[in-house]
Amino acid sequence: MIYSQLSSDLWAVRLEDGDDILVSLRRFVEVKGVRAGLLEGIGSLRKVRLGYYDFETRKYSWQVFEEDMEILNLSGNVSTKDAGYIPHVHVALGRKDFSVLGGHLDDGSQANMVEVFVRRLPGKLVKAHDQKIGLNVLQLSDRI
Amino acid sequence: MIYSQLSSDLWAVRLEDGDDILVSLRRFVEVKGVRAGLLEGIGSLRKVRLGYYDFETRKYSWQVFEEDMEILNLSGNVSTKDAGYIPHVHVALGRKDFSVLGGHLDDGSQANMVEVFVRRLPGKLVKAHDQKIGLNVLQLSDRI
Amino acid sequence: MIYSQLSSDLWAVRLEDGDDILVSLRRFVEVKGVRAGLLEGIGSLRKVRLGYYDFETRKYSWQVFEEDMEILNLSGNVSTKDAGYIPHVHVALGRKDFSVLGGHLDDGSQANMVEVFVRRLPGKLVKAHDQKIGLNVLQLSDRI
Repeated sequence: MIYSQLSSDLWAVRLEDGDDILVSLRRFVEVKGVRAGLLEGIGSLRKVRLGYYDFETRKYSWQVFEEDMEILNLSGNVSTKDAGYIPHVHVALGRKDFSVLGGHLDDGSQANMVEVFVRRLPGKLVKAHDQKIGLNVLQLSDRI
Repeated sequence: MIYSQLSSDLWAVRLEDGDDILVSLRRFVEVKGVRAGLLEGIGSLRKVRLGYYDFETRKYSWQVFEEDMEILNLSGNVSTKDAGYIPHVHVALGRKDFSVLGGHLDDGSQANMVEVFVRRLPGKLVKAHDQKIGLNVLQLSDRI
Repeated sequence: MIYSQLSSDLWAVRLEDGDDILVSLRRFVEVKGVRAGLLEGIGSLRKVRLGYYDFETRKYSWQVFEEDMEILNLSGNVSTKDAGYIPHVHVALGRKDFSVLGGHLDDGSQANMVEVFVRRLPGKLVKAHDQKIGLNVLQLSDRI
């Protein structure tokens, strides 16, 4: 993983051959202390572990795909929960026949080459486990 | 719909169980007076009403899907037309088998849980109806 | 191609009927001198030339699709290589049946109507050819 800092709150990151995408992003925001952030990127991966969350059973199902796929879009945000940093990332992936797969990105996904922009946001984003939903969700202060 | 303001021009919004996604976003930008903006988000929905616009017939076709789907990417912008606020939003959605659907997001789409970032842009974005295209389009001042 | 400048570093651009999407974006960043940037957009196109890069053979395969498709997401960045500007753009596209195609966007893709936001970033983004990968990749200064 290589990077350049473009401003006090913005980094360009390039994930390299075999880098674990989510593990790398988690490590990056930990090292830089990005406690609230946005992630966006494009590129290519060779292996992906995708999740799909079923809100009725409140369980993820997972599937691994091992093939070169274009990352049409990597979108997500960064928050914290207790002492940990949580990059929450979804991907849409283009296959060789130009059909598309996608889901929630998990550890175990390996880059070919990914260009990601990490933007630190002002303020804090904190997650906590929601027992009804079964997921960690953003704790936000106001309601409309 | 809950939210926190992160800066004068940025909000983190979480749509909750059953919230109408587009109606909520329209209401949010109305309440906050966001007359020009960008929207980006990820999450999950349980029902979606997708549109596809045919530029020959100049008509939308619509289809409703009722199943939990990951929102791989919610992308859009905010402008105004006459007295109204127009959030224009497209979504790419991941199904249980990790295949992907997508289109123009309409009212009638219900969140499971969606994390959206609303960014107010400087200046104004105004739309007007274009009779040739059959859509409301951005009125912009310069041409290359 | 019409546009409005929203701030010193941000433009709203609308591609019109038949505009070549990538050629237009390349021309825009050249005219404005955007040597580092981010691109995001939604809209519709009528023709697309999509690429898929195979990291084993180190070759792109290309396919042209000629049909109206919703641009669910146009994501990319801008860098330079030697004297040239490089907009690197991926798209996810929604078909009439709401299934999705996607890949690396090439010259030869024609807009119906595309709303793109071009953001100039501070600093520089420079690419150079990587012989091992076979692609132009971002040259970044630091490593974790």
